[in-house]
Amino acid sequence: MKFGISEEGRIIEDQVLRFLNEKIIPAEKQVIKEEHDVNDGRDTPTMKRLRAEAKALSLWNLYLPDKKWGAGLSNHDYSILCEQMGRSSIASRVFNCNAPDTGNAEILAEFGSEVQKAEYLRPLLEGSIRSCFSMTEPDSSGSDPTGLLTTAVRDGDEWVINGHKWFTSGAVGAKFAIVMVVTNPQGSGYERASMIIVPTDAPGFNLVRSVSVMGHVGGSGHCEIQYHNCRVPITNLLGPEHGGFMIAQARLGPGRIHHCMRAIGMAERAFEIMCRHANTRKSGDIKLGDRQFVQEWIATSRMEIDQARLLTQYAAWKMDTVGKHNARQELSMTKVVVPNMMMNVLDRVIQCLGALGVSDDTPVAAMWRNGRALRIADGPDEVHKIVIARRELKRFSD
Amino acid sequence: MKFGISEEGRIIEDQVLRFLNEKIIPAEKQVIKEEHDVNDGRDTPTMKRLRAEAKALSLWNLYLPDKKWGAGLSNHDYSILCEQMGRSSIASRVFNCNAPDTGNAEILAEFGSEVQKAEYLRPLLEGSIRSCFSMTEPDSSGSDPTGLLTTAVRDGDEWVINGHKWFTSGAVGAKFAIVMVVTNPQGSGYERASMIIVPTDAPGFNLVRSVSVMGHVGGSGHCEIQYHNCRVPITNLLGPEHGGFMIAQARLGPGRIHHCMRAIGMAERAFEIMCRHANTRKSGDIKLGDRQFVQEWIATSRMEIDQARLLTQYAAWKMDTVGKHNARQELSMTKVVVPNMMMNVLDRVIQCLGALGVSDDTPVAAMWRNGRALRIADGPDEVHKIVIARRELKRFSD
Amino acid sequence: MKFGISEEGRIIEDQVLRFLNEKIIPAEKQVIKEEHDVNDGRDTPTMKRLRAEAKALSLWNLYLPDKKWGAGLSNHDYSILCEQMGRSSIASRVFNCNAPDTGNAEILAEFGSEVQKAEYLRPLLEGSIRSCFSMTEPDSSGSDPTGLLTTAVRDGDEWVINGHKWFTSGAVGAKFAIVMVVTNPQGSGYERASMIIVPTDAPGFNLVRSVSVMGHVGGSGHCEIQYHNCRVPITNLLGPEHGGFMIAQARLGPGRIHHCMRAIGMAERAFEIMCRHANTRKSGDIKLGDRQFVQEWIATSRMEIDQARLLTQYAAWKMDTVGKHNARQELSMTKVVVPNMMMNVLDRVIQCLGALGVSDDTPVAAMWRNGRALRIADGPDEVHKIVIARRELKRFSD
Amino acid sequence: MKFGISEEGRIIEDQVLRFLNEKIIPAEKQVIKEEHDVNDGRDTPTMKRLRAEAKALSLWNLYLPDKKWGAGLSNHDYSILCEQMGRSSIASRVFNCNAPDTGNAEILAEFGSEVQKAEYLRPLLEGSIRSCFSMTEPDSSGSDPTGLLTTAVRDGDEWVINGHKWFTSGAVGAKFAIVMVVTNPQGSGYERASMIIVPTDAPGFNLVRSVSVMGHVGGSGHCEIQYHNCRVPITNLLGPEHGGFMIAQARLGPGRIHHCMRAIGMAERAFEIMCRHANTRKSGDIKLGDRQFVQEWIATSRMEIDQARLLTQYAAWKMDTVGKHNARQELSMTKVVVPNMMMNVLDRVIQCLGALGVSDDTPVAAMWRNGRALRIADGPDEVHKIVIARRELKRFSD
Repeated sequence: MKFGISEEGRIIEDQVLRFLNEKIIPAEKQVIKEEHDVNDGRDTPTMKRLRAEAKALSLWNLYLPDKKWGAGLSNHDYSILCEQMGRSSIASRVFNCNAPDTGNAEILAEFGSEVQKAEYLRPLLEGSIRSCFSMTEPDSSGSDPTGLLTTAVRDGDEWVINGHKWFTSGAVGAKFAIVMVVTNPQGSGYERASMIIVPTDAPGFNLVRSVSVMGHVGGSGHCEIQYHNCRVPITNLLGPEHGGFMIAQARLGPGRIHHCMRAIGMAERAFEIMCRHANTRKSGDIKLGDRQFVQEWIATSRMEIDQARLLTQYAAWKMDTVGKHNARQELSMTKVVVPNMMMNVLDRVIQCLGALGVSDDTPVAAMWRNGRALRIADGPDEVHKIVIARRELKRFSD
Repeated sequence: MKFGISEEGRIIEDQVLRFLNEKIIPAEKQVIKEEHDVNDGRDTPTMKRLRAEAKALSLWNLYLPDKKWGAGLSNHDYSILCEQMGRSSIASRVFNCNAPDTGNAEILAEFGSEVQKAEYLRPLLEGSIRSCFSMTEPDSSGSDPTGLLTTAVRDGDEWVINGHKWFTSGAVGAKFAIVMVVTNPQGSGYERASMIIVPTDAPGFNLVRSVSVMGHVGGSGHCEIQYHNCRVPITNLLGPEHGGFMIAQARLGPGRIHHCMRAIGMAERAFEIMCRHANTRKSGDIKLGDRQFVQEWIATSRMEIDQARLLTQYAAWKMDTVGKHNARQELSMTKVVVPNMMMNVLDRVIQCLGALGVSDDTPVAAMWRNGRALRIADGPDEVHKIVIARRELKRFSD
Repeated sequence: MKFGISEEGRIIEDQVLRFLNEKIIPAEKQVIKEEHDVNDGRDTPTMKRLRAEAKALSLWNLYLPDKKWGAGLSNHDYSILCEQMGRSSIASRVFNCNAPDTGNAEILAEFGSEVQKAEYLRPLLEGSIRSCFSMTEPDSSGSDPTGLLTTAVRDGDEWVINGHKWFTSGAVGAKFAIVMVVTNPQGSGYERASMIIVPTDAPGFNLVRSVSVMGHVGGSGHCEIQYHNCRVPITNLLGPEHGGFMIAQARLGPGRIHHCMRAIGMAERAFEIMCRHANTRKSGDIKLGDRQFVQEWIATSRMEIDQARLLTQYAAWKMDTVGKHNARQELSMTKVVVPNMMMNVLDRVIQCLGALGVSDDTPVAAMWRNGRALRIADGPDEVHKIVIARRELKRFSD
Repeated sequence: MKFGISEEGRIIEDQVLRFLNEKIIPAEKQVIKEEHDVNDGRDTPTMKRLRAEAKALSLWNLYLPDKKWGAGLSNHDYSILCEQMGRSSIASRVFNCNAPDTGNAEILAEFGSEVQKAEYLRPLLEGSIRSCFSMTEPDSSGSDPTGLLTTAVRDGDEWVINGHKWFTSGAVGAKFAIVMVVTNPQGSGYERASMIIVPTDAPGFNLVRSVSVMGHVGGSGHCEIQYHNCRVPITNLLGPEHGGFMIAQARLGPGRIHHCMRAIGMAERAFEIMCRHANTRKSGDIKLGDRQFVQEWIATSRMEIDQARLLTQYAAWKMDTVGKHNARQELSMTKVVVPNMMMNVLDRVIQCLGALGVSDDTPVAAMWRNGRALRIADGPDEVHKIVIARRELKRFSD
């Protein structure tokens, strides 16, 4: 039994931490202000500067496990960096480690043709373009991916795509989307769909609107897209035909770990804000931190965070050592445990901060309202619980 | 034992319901859109029209228990109207029953001088002005009102006010504030403060900013105010000198019932949205409503809502029959139970709606992010729990 | 709106309370000691004495709504007496108001023939015999009553009963059982079963064992019964043939209210023990009652108890005014809310009492381990939640 | 990062598992029956046989980290054996690894004089005697160990002990008690007490009663002891004078890990019972395991168990690598997390099993009612939460 990051990972972690504390956190408010003013999904001047500095230090594309493309870290070691990056809402973008570009780059690296890699992967890794991922549909249930309605039909050298998507995150300003479409309507559940690369300037790619989410419209958006006889070349198929769900699965494991470790980083940052507040603020003559109500919040949060982190690191370690398939149960559990833990912690922090907690004078209120989606995105809690239960029941079904 | 509204109340309830369903709910989206475009705290054109219609039908100032000023309903009966109004975020304003004007009008009616009534109460009731309430301070704990820092010192015929407030809700566009200030620094806890009426154009009333709350700046705002040698005439004292907390207490009972019943109305509306969604949306071939996860949400929500409503109506009935003082325990409990119930219900509705739930395509996401403050405003949960526990302990302290 | 017991009920309540405080509670430990020593399900000497005194005062059979048989109280008023009786584990028996005799008497009074009334109802009401109710089966799911396996077949003038029951509570020492049996195997769900009166000395009524429940075997028991070609006369059918579920439904409404109000009485007694302990016991120099952890338990318990009571009384009031059928939703909710509330409260009381709480030096530990079954008996929580949800979904299914 | 037991540990684990599955679990019901019949705290015939077999295989005293006395395993590795032993309520005793003998042996090995080791430690390790630990007092709060009331005063060559203890577990049939007594009344908090070895046949050691706990009296008991001028030789002092709390601390770390891992083993056994039940029992035509209510219980239990185990193993690993002192926070967290997790899991299992769950036909009901004390023993949850919170607050107190 041995816990902790590898020596190799430690070196990068130190650099990331130094950059985070010295460059990113001090610039946070400025970036948020600039984004609020511009709000078109493009990098703001300060973000551009930070990205250039990070890139110059090779703190860039840290997520890719293949040294050909990125830092070549294990899932476990990269997960520890994710927690650090999660502490600041702008950090992932600074290090070119932001979703959905990360997932898109991963599957392009693994399944893309050489032409696709040249056209889409390289500029993504250089940071000169952004991308989006178009899977969720307003008219089919996200908890049943086999119910997908958007179709792609071959017509000569082209795919003709028709359908309705939303929550295509990052579409405003993106160069291309990777779209999940039904290509094999008669196929059984997980063999019905394919992934196709669709440039956002393709005819028939209609960005209807950036959906207002938790009171916020703007930035790169959670967009509603109508695909209306949208045509792309046959060669834009990513990976094997009808292999959409297989690729989605490949994408999921590491993506979940990244998301979850960032969520843990958010929880830690909020936790720190709570403790500092409790150390200084008084109610009557007594410091909040000496009140048992507050001690209950702090202790319970610490216990929940630490347990969630251990579970996530264990899942990452299993992915690294016995493979994604054998880590499925732990990955599913991580996906349920971490977002719920994060929301619990944030709720306590808000309550501890009082009026300050619901204001935007700290990052906590934004973490809380934006974080709620994590219990829904990439399969709601309930779908994962069903899957977890079935695997356990099977173990005892002799 | 007899549950239910009085005959007299029933007649007004029917009118309110009809107006709500036929006029207000259909206009909801339009008002929200207009408010988003204007965002200066003034009534939008559609709101003005609705208000005029409601006033013409005498569906106006329904909250005042004294027939001289308003509808003269019991707390219990008016609470039932509040639940209905709570269903739409714009309804209270339409009926001129919106906070903080309601609380301000109540204490002006009870404690105001004839001059104050003429100058402030009458136009409030006519709906020609708005007001705000300035109590919360960034530098003192809301859970310890005796720690108040803002002071008023008599200087000749004037009060000179100095201090720092925030979450002065509704200040943008308000004609006057009722401000809680320390006038008796040596006084014991509840005899230190007074309430003073401060016109917002008084010298030294500085509206620093509308604080961004849960991502939202604007409307009439949750404002930060600096009182800097702010001077108002001696006659602007509301009620007895050093009577601030006494008046605040008087204001609290009915106000809590109103707030809580509106919150119950919100919960009911969200509950209805969940049920309709569960009746129509399928996951695989099965309706969501046939899934036990969803049934659990629906059943638990129904049980929580109904219990909370019974408790609130019981508190209102006790206020009506044995007086506010003897209903204190029930009022405290209502203040804790209802906001927590509402947040629980909204959380389940969001989870049931999935991506739609975090979008602003339904009113649920806004209810959820704005509703969080209810567990903090007017005393956080914890303060009320302490008070509730102490009263119980006393019962057994023979 | 009017809360509270009727004048008529108040008079009986006063008598019950006086008898409870002056006679029953002081004798509690003695009865428990005697029961522990004897443990054969018969009334102990002290219990006999108390019963004689209560009967002499006509504090007897208070549960029957028909004055011909009992006190003739409304469900609402009797529910208030139940709460008082629930405070002492021996009180219901003292007043001849103990389950399952109460439910059995109710259905005998409503559905029994004159002969059955003479033979079974009258001695039950006189208190000279006891009875049991035989429905739960080890091999069929209690959450699906239509899956019942025990059968009764007519053979000439007799029913021949075969099957396996358990949790036939009170069988040790009982004169007769009312047994739920399938008489119409082809019938649809709720028309398959009948109720038959089976004397416990009938041939083929085999009491296999008193099942050990939560470490306790003995008393009148939760018994396992084998019906092996058990024969009783045709005339022992209770009510209409195949009417078993209809009668069970009739029995359920009031029975649930009684059970739940007794559970509320238990919660109140435990709550009082917690408060008295918190008022006297110190941790360090500080009284437990001044600790926020303890205040949290007290406040939350008070809020849960009061809400649960209001819901139960509301259900009783609806039964009284609009009938059992129209109170179904409230009855189902009460059945879920109250046992869960009780277990929550008891858990907090145990934690507050510390080592004393898990000892049998107070009645709390026994309430807790015996109370757990209430979330299972008469339909587990989950079955009721499904039913509650379906009724709500139907309201919005236009 | 590397999870899992060492090679050395694995070999013992295999032996323990084989013995457990082949010898212990099949004999479980027999031992429980024999204990029920005899109930005097002595080993029953079957227990004696099992112990002899285990000892012959050297599966004996596995808990002692010093190879001179026991198996010499790391805390981490032994913790994994504890989980296995926890699966059966009789296993710890079979392997001579049962509390409180384990803790007593540990401190005798670390702090005992050679004479004490010869007289008390060796026979304990041989299994020829049993011991008890006498710390909890009915009149002082377990959450404030510095409030201890029992005193020992030197009188010549003897200690004279006076005081009142209870929950002295295992006293019936024990050879000696280790008693915590105040020897330095003026000393500050943690320097007031000493530990003294008191033979149970010493004059003035009065075993008042075996306290009934959760309906159970008997076995080796949770005993109430009156020390009335109880005299033992000066040499019976264990370790340094006034070092009682220091020794208690030394005893606590490993003891908590052992307790907690056994509790995890209990949770796993109950979890398995739930899954097997859900795989076979039907409600209507549908297997319980296909019901979402049941899937929710299974998934949530799996997530809670796995997180709790990772936390406990992490605490053990920290004890092994950086020492008990530096693992304090993790040890405190483990003490809170695991008993709560266990009770949550057991509650779900009971609900899933229905009537069977509250019966003693499975071991679940006994685990549940006996397990409740774990949230109180060795410091209630709340005391540990306060300590956890204070350590976190300190980290941010710059």
